[in-house]
Amino acid sequence: MMHLYDVRDKTVVVVDIFRATSCMTTAFAYGVKRITPVATLDECLALKSSLCYTAGERDGKKIAEFDFGNSPFEYMHPSLLGKDIAFTTTNGTQAIVKSREAREILIGSFLNLSAVAKHLERGENNILVVCSGWKGKVNLEDTLFAGAVVELLKDTIKAACDAPLLAQHLYSQAKTNMGEFLKHASHVQRLARLGIKKDIDYCLTPDQFNVVPVLKNNVLTVE
Amino acid sequence: MMHLYDVRDKTVVVVDIFRATSCMTTAFAYGVKRITPVATLDECLALKSSLCYTAGERDGKKIAEFDFGNSPFEYMHPSLLGKDIAFTTTNGTQAIVKSREAREILIGSFLNLSAVAKHLERGENNILVVCSGWKGKVNLEDTLFAGAVVELLKDTIKAACDAPLLAQHLYSQAKTNMGEFLKHASHVQRLARLGIKKDIDYCLTPDQFNVVPVLKNNVLTVE
Repeated sequence: MMHLYDVRDKTVVVVDIFRATSCMTTAFAYGVKRITPVATLDECLALKSSLCYTAGERDGKKIAEFDFGNSPFEYMHPSLLGKDIAFTTTNGTQAIVKSREAREILIGSFLNLSAVAKHLERGENNILVVCSGWKGKVNLEDTLFAGAVVELLKDTIKAACDAPLLAQHLYSQAKTNMGEFLKHASHVQRLARLGIKKDIDYCLTPDQFNVVPVLKNNVLTVE
Repeated sequence: MMHLYDVRDKTVVVVDIFRATSCMTTAFAYGVKRITPVATLDECLALKSSLCYTAGERDGKKIAEFDFGNSPFEYMHPSLLGKDIAFTTTNGTQAIVKSREAREILIGSFLNLSAVAKHLERGENNILVVCSGWKGKVNLEDTLFAGAVVELLKDTIKAACDAPLLAQHLYSQAKTNMGEFLKHASHVQRLARLGIKKDIDYCLTPDQFNVVPVLKNNVLTVE
């Protein structure tokens, strides 16, 4: 759907709840210095150095020669303090690449929901939440995050089309028990098959960290 | 989003609640013989004859040289009995044209919801509900119709991705009062500005007619 939206006047929030943007949020909260999102495995490996780890997944699975996978718990490791990461995932980093003409690009997850919403509220740009989805198709969890942002900003920012309303309705229905609401969602079932229920619960926990990763010159940092 | 779905093994239900597919359903219920959906105004005018009326809209408004507009109430007229219509609309007929490689194409609206669901239940193809939306963007009312179909078929047909689940959740939230649920929807506000509240109420009334328009050789008919 992104081709239908002109991102050039917008602050774009890229979200991939399960699990790329939840990993990135966690990594910054635990002291990572910079994250470079890249589209391909080769680009990722080319950036590897003593100061830069490689991280990411394809189809939800860790890549053998990479240092880190796509579980947010891996990014709580002390060895990452002050280091860089080159990061590639099936959907999340692709969404960042597609958003590159935006005026500002942020990384959103439930873990930094309120921090992102406050940043947006202070800004003056139009806002587009880019839900990474799964291979181009909509997914429920990223839509719920978009709905949560709409809900938090509803008194100050007006919806420009039906998509934010749809997301807000879903979030209002889901918010008291997102895990239960998502139990039939395709990605949750995919992750459950991979045995990572605790990742799901963690990624759905709002407001753990007061960090807002911002992309500048193709590199993510926090203030 | 349609480019993400292979329609060739599917029964596609095209829906444009406000108001193309609601008009088509009504027209067939009132005895129209055939409807030819066309993409452009010129194609529409080229089909005009003593047996074939022209009908449609652009941006929600009737076209001056056309016989009929896009209000379902116009299609209750006795002069249409046994006649043909060439029909073009902003979104609805475009969705039909994009679906043309499907194994079977049906026209859906709340007015013939249960008739369409029964037809789908008897069929053996995979199912895709194509929500026309507004100029390529998602809208709430077409998504609610998709959710209503998922709800009716939930015991016999399994969702293949998150989009049907999302639609079903929205419908379950909206179904007791769809008019109220849709009051902030972009298209409802657009139609309200055009002064056609009664069209909105009518188009949201389920199960008025037991007709299932089917496309064959680019022409819609009912059995």
